[in-house]
Amino acid sequence: VLKKKIAVLAGDGIGPEVCREAIKVLEAVAERFGHQFTFDQQLMGACAIDATGDPLPQQTLDACFAADAVLLGAIGDPKYDNDPSAKVRPEQGLLRLRKSLGLYANIRPVTAYDALLAHSPLKPERISGTDMLIFRELTGGIYFGDKGRTDDGQGAYDHCTYSREEIERIAHRAFQAAETRRRKLTLVDKANVLETSRLWREVVQQIAPQYPEVRVDYLFVDNAAMQVILNPKQFDVILTENMFGDIISDEASVIAGSLGLLPSASVGDQVALFEPIHGSYPQAKGRGIANPIATILSGAMLLEHFGLQEEADAVKAAVQAALDSNILTPELNALTPCSTEQVGNFIAYQV
Amino acid sequence: VLKKKIAVLAGDGIGPEVCREAIKVLEAVAERFGHQFTFDQQLMGACAIDATGDPLPQQTLDACFAADAVLLGAIGDPKYDNDPSAKVRPEQGLLRLRKSLGLYANIRPVTAYDALLAHSPLKPERISGTDMLIFRELTGGIYFGDKGRTDDGQGAYDHCTYSREEIERIAHRAFQAAETRRRKLTLVDKANVLETSRLWREVVQQIAPQYPEVRVDYLFVDNAAMQVILNPKQFDVILTENMFGDIISDEASVIAGSLGLLPSASVGDQVALFEPIHGSYPQAKGRGIANPIATILSGAMLLEHFGLQEEADAVKAAVQAALDSNILTPELNALTPCSTEQVGNFIAYQV
Ligand SMILES: CC(C)[C@H](C(=O)O)[C@@H](O)C(=O)O
Ligand SMILES: CC(C)[C@H](C(=O)O)[C@@H](O)C(=O)O
Repeated sequence: VLKKKIAVLAGDGIGPEVCREAIKVLEAVAERFGHQFTFDQQLMGACAIDATGDPLPQQTLDACFAADAVLLGAIGDPKYDNDPSAKVRPEQGLLRLRKSLGLYANIRPVTAYDALLAHSPLKPERISGTDMLIFRELTGGIYFGDKGRTDDGQGAYDHCTYSREEIERIAHRAFQAAETRRRKLTLVDKANVLETSRLWREVVQQIAPQYPEVRVDYLFVDNAAMQVILNPKQFDVILTENMFGDIISDEASVIAGSLGLLPSASVGDQVALFEPIHGSYPQAKGRGIANPIATILSGAMLLEHFGLQEEADAVKAAVQAALDSNILTPELNALTPCSTEQVGNFIAYQV
Repeated sequence: VLKKKIAVLAGDGIGPEVCREAIKVLEAVAERFGHQFTFDQQLMGACAIDATGDPLPQQTLDACFAADAVLLGAIGDPKYDNDPSAKVRPEQGLLRLRKSLGLYANIRPVTAYDALLAHSPLKPERISGTDMLIFRELTGGIYFGDKGRTDDGQGAYDHCTYSREEIERIAHRAFQAAETRRRKLTLVDKANVLETSRLWREVVQQIAPQYPEVRVDYLFVDNAAMQVILNPKQFDVILTENMFGDIISDEASVIAGSLGLLPSASVGDQVALFEPIHGSYPQAKGRGIANPIATILSGAMLLEHFGLQEEADAVKAAVQAALDSNILTPELNALTPCSTEQVGNFIAYQV
């Protein structure tokens, strides 16, 4: 019997609803395969600000360190977005969590599901067969640099920095992943303008000879933003810095036809974290229309992280069954929509 | 008789070929409408480095200041891209030119041509009718901030700064453009993380009441990268900072079905500059396959800037005729392709 403790940060908006279904599926896996998973629910994000004044209370952080993995729903609330002077924000909790847990690599698979080609804004022949894995650096760059207002109050600044070591550790992970896949790695940067990008290019060029089987190429981020749409099949592993990764990976998500399908893993030296790539979607909260699949597939990545490949495959097969049977929430099935709970129940039952 | 002097910086790669056709079309306009345009060709980019060691020689800059407008082809050469240690780069010339001429607003129209819907990677029903105008700030932000290596040689940095004034002047232009269009302005930023973005949001919120007819909304850049593909018709005027504008406007170009169609204007307090949004495409150099339409339409924007609306409309109509008659370069007409020169000749003849 494998015993694992999972900290659950359901967060805001639709976070709690989609986490509920992912937990249901993980419990079904535990029962079928004879494991024991315990779930420790903790506050983070706007709900934590409301309850404690802090988007990432110490108790939550302690629970994450004490866990074998973390499952996150979504955080964010519009009441903070249009108030540029808000001092405390849900996002600060997420950024601080990533930094505290040392989650330097965010890994996002993007695949085009044949069952959903009709839902993609892209023509089917362009995207069918797409299978890329995006490595986004997650604890450095401009999101974590010095920021503030200038003394005269008339200006603002954000500083972007990267060290060789920050680049090396994620680059090695990306190369290693490429070795087990189609052996192609694309670095996305803006080395014709930015010094940090030139450092990224330098480090990747230095590391590349250690992975002789991996073909490396380089794309400027503006060009990459086109190529991801024009010809997504050209990509295998994409490696990039924090902000470019934020933009390019969200952009790439349109290929799948719904944000509601895409999971992610954030890994580092300590406990790893798994979360859907979508946000807290507050307009949908409590209406039973949120797609739980991205969170359920994040659960599958969590199982893989535990070394439970068979279990992870069972979850993925159950998701595929839901897709094939059209057991899907309204954004993917307008005629005979299922609720968040119905989709979760079906997948848990199939596992 | 209107007399105007146009500085031409044809640049690298396909730059000279596409400029040649744009000049041909402008000369046809001058003849038909009885104007007198003179063209002053100057070096910039890699070709200027080769000839003088400087991507933007003083003589070129002087010629731009002495002109009524500048027409630019494209700059850039791959020999600099994979050499992170190159000290002199073609792009420095372009950045310095933008700064010297005070070209703080880059304006890019993105329209879906019905004749080309088949060439877009996006489904026709998603994009037909798209008509957006992107305002990208062009002389501030991280591209122009302090940059360098840390003292220990193990790190690199790029600083992003914005002042209130830098934001205000382009914001006013964007609001004014929105007033003459569908009266919607979308600010793209990352105000949930970046301080400069919060300043952008603050300034736009402060200016908005001066344009009571314009509806303003706000999108985080990661979300914008999705929305531009998912539902481009929702956008009228997009306003954003330099780097986000670089990424989002190139991304949006896929809607048109070819990069080779999209023009841009860069304006400020002095002489304005007009250039296609595509790059120097060195692989195509001298092969007669480069699409000159983006440069020709940049010429149309130049005519509008001179107040020659009828002349500009004549150019646009001639381009439309080329699209309707399939007089197009190979990327848009694989079966009966025309050369760069043939497309230019046809359009010049139609004017
Ligand atoms: C909420 C925000 C800080 C976050 C980010 O940009 O990192 C989100 O967009 C994401 O991609 O996880
Ligand atoms: C060549 C480069 C410096 C430039 C930029 O990023 O500004 C280009 O990509 C553009 O968009 O005009």
